[in-house]
Amino acid sequence: MSTAHQQRSRATRARILEAAKTCFAREGYDAASVAEICQQAGVGKGGFYYHFPSKQALFLELLNGWLAELDALLAAEQAKAGSAPNRLMAMAGLMPQVAQAAVGQLPLFLEYLLQALRHPSIWKATIAPIRRYRRLFARLVAAGQSEGAIRQVEAELAARVIVSLALGDLLQDVLEDRGRRGGRQAAGSLELLLTGLEKKGTA
Amino acid sequence: MSTAHQQRSRATRARILEAAKTCFAREGYDAASVAEICQQAGVGKGGFYYHFPSKQALFLELLNGWLAELDALLAAEQAKAGSAPNRLMAMAGLMPQVAQAAVGQLPLFLEYLLQALRHPSIWKATIAPIRRYRRLFARLVAAGQSEGAIRQVEAELAARVIVSLALGDLLQDVLEDRGRRGGRQAAGSLELLLTGLEKKGTA
Repeated sequence: MSTAHQQRSRATRARILEAAKTCFAREGYDAASVAEICQQAGVGKGGFYYHFPSKQALFLELLNGWLAELDALLAAEQAKAGSAPNRLMAMAGLMPQVAQAAVGQLPLFLEYLLQALRHPSIWKATIAPIRRYRRLFARLVAAGQSEGAIRQVEAELAARVIVSLALGDLLQDVLEDRGRRGGRQAAGSLELLLTGLEKKGTA
Repeated sequence: MSTAHQQRSRATRARILEAAKTCFAREGYDAASVAEICQQAGVGKGGFYYHFPSKQALFLELLNGWLAELDALLAAEQAKAGSAPNRLMAMAGLMPQVAQAAVGQLPLFLEYLLQALRHPSIWKATIAPIRRYRRLFARLVAAGQSEGAIRQVEAELAARVIVSLALGDLLQDVLEDRGRRGGRQAAGSLELLLTGLEKKGTA
């Protein structure tokens, strides 16, 4: 394959992904057809199926792209030094950035959750990162307990609450702003929770 | 109108609502047609439009019915005596009951949120109760502050966090159980938060 060909191929793939975002956000996953996505992207069906075996594969690719961005942000934060509560707060501080990256994609986020209830393969792709984030936060809470900074609550429960705050704040922002922006208050929310996790007498 | 006629009319209306729940949950709001809902309910189109002017009106009626149940549960709890933190905890204790009432309707809840981003009238019907619950919780937090039991945080932020916990817990339960049940851990989550709201030295 020539380099020019490869570049064209990558550009086509990116155009299909962008077109899919637009069509899914506008009409929903079920209503948006491969034909419409092709038209929006300016590619033929042959070009589409060269890159993606199905509409569902394309949908999962969008989800994975969004999660990869989120993982990169969290990994950069995790690599930094600091106490467990400070690292948790730093991650909460990322929320506006996460939400910014998701501008216009937030209806798509709801669509993932909805489709996850209907299709086992989308469910697996959705629940896996949620469970992974819960394990990450549980490890951080447990680390905070070892450091003596976090009181002895069930680390799994605390991790679940952190994920609830992130999801719930995102949802409320999405609704208030009708999908335009969000994540402005996440850090404030987590601060309240972390105070609840603090070991009495350390504050 | 004869009483027998009224009874039949009420029964038809209830059958349409049940059929709509089934069809919306199975196919989604957009894909489910009035014709399919009529078939599922065993009524003709004339019968349908006698009771509901449109598919959207039917959708909003389902949302309002669910909210009315939630309001009744919360109002019963609010009427009881007790300190503000105890009343907040009692409300969190209702979550399993709320989730139980919503069994099988949870995909529909996601559908509301998604449709709210697309249709202004559904958005208004969805955001209004969320704002109302935030105001209710903000009043309870402010009452707890007057009682000296809750530290001086912004009551609106605390109320937002309570709503985030409820929404986020519901979402995680929905996903873990794939829409079958949920709400088991909400009380534990709110307990963590309320500890964060406690006035230092009162515990």
